[in-house]
Amino acid sequence: MQRSRVYLDAGGSAPLSPRVSDALRAGFADGWADPARLVTESRKARGLLDGSREAIADVMGVSAEQVHFTPSIHVAFERAIAGIARARRAQSRIIVSAIERDALMNAAAFALPQGIETIAVNSQGHLDIEAFAAAVSADGVALAAIQHANQEIGTVQRLDRIASSAAAAGVPLLIDASSSIGHRDTPQQWDALIAHPADWGGPAGLGVLALKPGTRWLPAWPEGDDWAPGGISVPLALASAVALQEREQERREVSGRMGALVERIRATVRQLSGIDVLGDPYERLPHIVTFSCLYVDGESLVAELDREGFAVGSGSACASGTLEPSRVLASIGALTHGNVRVALHPGVTSDDVDRFLAVLPQVLDRVRSRLGSPSSD
Amino acid sequence: MQRSRVYLDAGGSAPLSPRVSDALRAGFADGWADPARLVTESRKARGLLDGSREAIADVMGVSAEQVHFTPSIHVAFERAIAGIARARRAQSRIIVSAIERDALMNAAAFALPQGIETIAVNSQGHLDIEAFAAAVSADGVALAAIQHANQEIGTVQRLDRIASSAAAAGVPLLIDASSSIGHRDTPQQWDALIAHPADWGGPAGLGVLALKPGTRWLPAWPEGDDWAPGGISVPLALASAVALQEREQERREVSGRMGALVERIRATVRQLSGIDVLGDPYERLPHIVTFSCLYVDGESLVAELDREGFAVGSGSACASGTLEPSRVLASIGALTHGNVRVALHPGVTSDDVDRFLAVLPQVLDRVRSRLGSPSSD
Repeated sequence: MQRSRVYLDAGGSAPLSPRVSDALRAGFADGWADPARLVTESRKARGLLDGSREAIADVMGVSAEQVHFTPSIHVAFERAIAGIARARRAQSRIIVSAIERDALMNAAAFALPQGIETIAVNSQGHLDIEAFAAAVSADGVALAAIQHANQEIGTVQRLDRIASSAAAAGVPLLIDASSSIGHRDTPQQWDALIAHPADWGGPAGLGVLALKPGTRWLPAWPEGDDWAPGGISVPLALASAVALQEREQERREVSGRMGALVERIRATVRQLSGIDVLGDPYERLPHIVTFSCLYVDGESLVAELDREGFAVGSGSACASGTLEPSRVLASIGALTHGNVRVALHPGVTSDDVDRFLAVLPQVLDRVRSRLGSPSSD
Repeated sequence: MQRSRVYLDAGGSAPLSPRVSDALRAGFADGWADPARLVTESRKARGLLDGSREAIADVMGVSAEQVHFTPSIHVAFERAIAGIARARRAQSRIIVSAIERDALMNAAAFALPQGIETIAVNSQGHLDIEAFAAAVSADGVALAAIQHANQEIGTVQRLDRIASSAAAAGVPLLIDASSSIGHRDTPQQWDALIAHPADWGGPAGLGVLALKPGTRWLPAWPEGDDWAPGGISVPLALASAVALQEREQERREVSGRMGALVERIRATVRQLSGIDVLGDPYERLPHIVTFSCLYVDGESLVAELDREGFAVGSGSACASGTLEPSRVLASIGALTHGNVRVALHPGVTSDDVDRFLAVLPQVLDRVRSRLGSPSSD
C-alpha cells in the first residue's frame, strides 16, 4: 500500500488549509477587478484588499496604514533597503548579521555597494550583540538589517538589545521577520519589518512590508510605483490575511505541538552517529530543525528521503536541481554539506514524525554505504 | 427587479471564466510548493510553471525559453528597459510614441533620465512613421518602445514599418502588446515584447516578457533576481496560460462578435449631440471604444452609469477615486474630460449593449442638466 506523502519542507511554503482555499475562491469570485478603478466591482476589490491589510496589521499589532503588500519578500527587501538608504545618502553603510537571507544580502549589495558590514554570529546563530552595538554607533551607517529568526536553523535573535542599540545610534532598523510571523509574537521595536505570507500558511507570490510612522525613505524606483509596482493580486492578499488569522488563533496549540515534535526529532537524531543538530535548542522557531550528517551530501539525502515519501529541505535549493553550500551553516561553523532541514506545518502528525524518524537511519545508511562510509549506529 | 450588472471596463481586468477558475483551483491544489526546490511537490509546481510558459509561448509563436513571467507589466517594463539600456550604455536615448502607457514612460524616465524622445501621433492615434524612422536612425538611441495597440482608444499601430526602421538602424525594439495579445495576432518583429495576462482573461498579478534570442541586456537589479524577483505565483501562471488558450481558441468568433458590438456602439453614440468617438474605426482592437462628451466630466458619467448597473472606464483612474486628464486623449487632440471607455469581455451580450445604449443618453442628459448644459438630442 502506498502511504501518503509527508511534507516536511514547510519553511516558506506549505499545502493550503481548507479555510485558505475557501478565501482564495472567494477572492477570485469577488476580487478580480482592478482595485484602482472607480466602479462597483473595483470598490469591492479595494474593500477586500483594505480588509486584508487591516487583518494582517491587527495580528502584527500595527495600524493598517503601516502595512504594504509587495509581490515578494525580494521586492520588499529591495525597495525598503534602497528607499531608506536613499533618504540617508550621507551614510553609505549597512550593518547585517552573517546569517541574513541571500535576498536581503543581494538587496543590500545593490543599494549600498561596498557598504556591507557583516557582524558574526556564535555557533548557535546568535548575533554578537556587543559587536553590533559598536558597529551601529559608528559614523556613516545608513541602516541596520537583522533577522528575527533564521529560516535554516530556527534560532531566534534577542532583538531587544539590538533594537535599543540601533535606536540609541539613531540608525533605522529593518527586521526580517519573514520566518517568524505566524510562529512567534511580532517584534515591536523596528523601523521597517518584512514578513512572508507563504511562511504562515498563505499562498506564494506575496510579501509584506511594514513601516513605522516617521521612518524616512525616498523612492529609488520609477514614478508611479509604490511598494508594489503595478499592484498585487487581491485574492492572494485576502488568502494571506485569512491564513494569518487562522495561524494566530491556533498558534499556542500549534506551536506547542510542533515544538514537541521538533524536540522529539532533535533527541532522536542526536543519538545517531555522525550527526550534529544545529541552532539554539531553546530560543528557536517551534517548527524548524536542521542537522548536518557526516559522510553524505544533502542532495542525496533529500532525493532518497523524497523517494521514501518525505519532503525535506537542504542548503540553498536552486532551480537547476543542485545545491549550493549554505552560508548560514558556514557562519555558525557547521558542516555545510549533508544537512537536512525539517520544517513542520500544522497538518504534520505525530505519526508522520515517527515514520520519518524510523526511515531516516536506513536512508542515512544506504547513502553512506553507497559512498563507502560508516553506518549510522 | 434588480437587473444584473454589466461589466464594460474589461481592458486589463474581467471576471474569470469557469475554465480559468478551474485552472486556479487545480493550480493551488497541485502548484502550491516552491518550484525552486528539489522535492516531488516542488517538481510538480515546476512542471506546471514550465507547462504554462510553453502554452503561452505557443500561442505567441515563440519558444518557451523566450518567455518570462514577471509580477506585473510594470516590472516587465522596468526591467526590460533598464536591462537593455544598460547593455547599450554608450547610447542614452529612448524613442517612444506620445501615447505609450504611463508605466512604460515612467520606466523609461527612470532608466534613461532626460533621454526620452517622444514621437507624435495623428488624430486617430497612429504614429508618425517618418518621424519615427528619422529619430531611430539618429546617433545615441539605446532602444525604441512602441505599443501594438492603445488601451484607451483601441488604435492598432502599423508595426511593419516601425519594426523595419528600428532593425535597419540596429536599435532594439520593445513592443508593448499588453492590450493586444488575446485580441489580435501576436506581432512577430521585435526584440522584447510585453503582454498582460489580466487583459486576455487571466487573473491580475502577472506580466509576461518575451525576449528574442540575441537581444542584449545586463542586469540592472540585485544579484540572484531574474525577471521576477522572488518568483511568481504558479497558480496565477497556470490560469493565465489556460485563459490565453481559451481566448485563442475562441478568438475569431469573439473578435467578430465584439467588433460588431463596438461598431453598434460607435454608430449609436455618434448620433448623440456633443460626442466625439475616438480612435481608428477600422485598425482597432475589436473590444474597445472610447468617446468624449462635451459639457460633462468623466467622473460623474462613470459614477452615474455605475449606479445604473454599468461599469465603464474613463481617463486614468487612480486609487483615490479621482481622475486625471488622459495623456493619450490630449495627444490625439481630443477632449480630455468627459470621456468614457467601453471595453467588452467575451461574456458581454448584445442585450447588455442595447441596455447600455438605451441608458447612456438619459445619463448624459441628467449629468449635463445638473451642470446646466445642453441635452444630448
